[in-house]
Amino acid sequence: MKISMKITTGHGSGGRLTQQLTRRILDCFETDSRNRAFRNVSQQSVSQRGAFQMEDCAFIGDDTAVSIDGFTVFPHDFPGGDIGKLAVCGSANDLAVRGVRPLFLTLALIIEEGLDLADLDRYMESAARTAYEGEIQLVAGDTKVVPHGAADKLFVTTCAMGKRESPHVLQTSNLKDGDILILSTSPGRHGAALAAARFGLDAPGLLSDCALLWPALSPLLNFSELRCMRDCTRGGLGTVLCEWAEASSLGIEIVEADIPSNREVDSVCDILGLDRLYLASEGCALAAVAPEQAEECAAALRQSPACKDAAIIGRVAAVHPGMVGMKTRIGGQRFVDMPTGEILPRIC
Amino acid sequence: MKISMKITTGHGSGGRLTQQLTRRILDCFETDSRNRAFRNVSQQSVSQRGAFQMEDCAFIGDDTAVSIDGFTVFPHDFPGGDIGKLAVCGSANDLAVRGVRPLFLTLALIIEEGLDLADLDRYMESAARTAYEGEIQLVAGDTKVVPHGAADKLFVTTCAMGKRESPHVLQTSNLKDGDILILSTSPGRHGAALAAARFGLDAPGLLSDCALLWPALSPLLNFSELRCMRDCTRGGLGTVLCEWAEASSLGIEIVEADIPSNREVDSVCDILGLDRLYLASEGCALAAVAPEQAEECAAALRQSPACKDAAIIGRVAAVHPGMVGMKTRIGGQRFVDMPTGEILPRIC
Repeated sequence: MKISMKITTGHGSGGRLTQQLTRRILDCFETDSRNRAFRNVSQQSVSQRGAFQMEDCAFIGDDTAVSIDGFTVFPHDFPGGDIGKLAVCGSANDLAVRGVRPLFLTLALIIEEGLDLADLDRYMESAARTAYEGEIQLVAGDTKVVPHGAADKLFVTTCAMGKRESPHVLQTSNLKDGDILILSTSPGRHGAALAAARFGLDAPGLLSDCALLWPALSPLLNFSELRCMRDCTRGGLGTVLCEWAEASSLGIEIVEADIPSNREVDSVCDILGLDRLYLASEGCALAAVAPEQAEECAAALRQSPACKDAAIIGRVAAVHPGMVGMKTRIGGQRFVDMPTGEILPRIC
Repeated sequence: MKISMKITTGHGSGGRLTQQLTRRILDCFETDSRNRAFRNVSQQSVSQRGAFQMEDCAFIGDDTAVSIDGFTVFPHDFPGGDIGKLAVCGSANDLAVRGVRPLFLTLALIIEEGLDLADLDRYMESAARTAYEGEIQLVAGDTKVVPHGAADKLFVTTCAMGKRESPHVLQTSNLKDGDILILSTSPGRHGAALAAARFGLDAPGLLSDCALLWPALSPLLNFSELRCMRDCTRGGLGTVLCEWAEASSLGIEIVEADIPSNREVDSVCDILGLDRLYLASEGCALAAVAPEQAEECAAALRQSPACKDAAIIGRVAAVHPGMVGMKTRIGGQRFVDMPTGEILPRIC
């Protein structure tokens, strides 16, 4: 009996199944049906996350980098943003965390027949405003229309390009035993805001953190011992920590009480039974830096209005290689695992 | 009474409504709600076609070019190709027609929950094989999964990057009175193959022309008086001719009997009442060159196995500026207009 394997929403979670899906697709590009190696995948630079030293964007040439991201967020409008703003921030932030200034943007729309042109205008104005604020130039675009029912209103794919301004390449393989982990702000606001909107929870004051990260992160490029950064999007902070631990073969230790927290996010998590460690952010980054520069680096982050609550949340340690340990609020110790299934599909 | 304007499939036709939609989106990027000019659109280089001197890809810097394209083709498998092959060819060809060698590819998938992983494998193997054959390297990717019913199986967006190898920039504004127009092969095979598949017509031997154009077109870069090239995708040859006439403010004269023809395409057009002038190709390009190099240029094209039937089909003329005239097979004269609605949605 042949078992037909099918795509599940868990494959879109950003966690373990996404890793497996990515590996499967890369396998297609590495070997053709005649078992000849394609060798046309730049493995270390594939933007999709997972093992295999994957990073958020790829370098083509010395200092030009590129990142592509599809956006299927639902609802298209959410507290703190919409699919237009998100599509610009998402791709641009994948460059910013690697020390790359976002400069150019290409944008492809898949539109469902029947979409109100006024809605499309609003999303495009939102995208344009975000690009303008980030000094990112739209250089190319594409539009496709599919019949009613073949898509859900609007999907946006953006590909951002930029130039590296960090003196060295920021990558997970730079991580060293003893490095300090700094979180730029409280995690999970994007996921919590979407969950609240989707389940009809009244969460006054809870806004997605969706924002361009370059202004807050670029001052960190002055720190000679900055190792790497990652924005905590799909899969949240927990997934980033697991990926770093796996990719570096070092362990990670974090302290739950030191993670910046947000009352509204905590409330939504309590009511809906969600774990803020796995809720997506769209304007929150994790940075790793050598211990001697950690305090100064956190202080530099706090200069940015969006990162006033930046905090040291843990460190890289040679104990339990490949694993993430967390000292819990109540004084216990537990491992943080990568999520497998999907709680909230279409958060980005 | 407020009339709510909605997106129609005609907005995806590649013709007049697509032009209007593109202009509308660009307006968003050019002016924000406070009426301040964004000025972050590189107008001349937006890949979406239309008036405003738009071209198939954008230059960022002197010789690096980029193009983005979404693919929603239905059915996903068609005679002569599938969505994977098409997604690589489509973006790469938008570079090739501007004298740019495709080098890098980024790829974003929007996958419907429930898609067979075996189907996904097949499409990705097809994309990988095409990229390998074209010596194009996959550098970054993204996958998103949407719940069942929110998309139709699989949408693919690709963004291709490359380096200009043409000695001068190939662009519509180079067109001059008297230039000769050469078509690389018979037009409309992609659209006809899809129409046949969709309507259950038996059309043995009819295959989409979906193919990488760089191998056939790159020898033309040696011609000093090559003006510009364009692949005849959505909207077909007729739309490209109208765009060139409008953008150059020159007229175009073509001879119907000189257009390379394909018996199967003609049959499908006869049965379904389609006009081959507007049927999409995915491996057919139009080139404009000065008269003194035209015969030699057409001969160079015919060296390529895919372009054995390349032919001179007309010329640029100062008569009826902005319009395309065609001498018909039966000896009459008619204007070729840009299509407005959509006959075949989701052809690419």
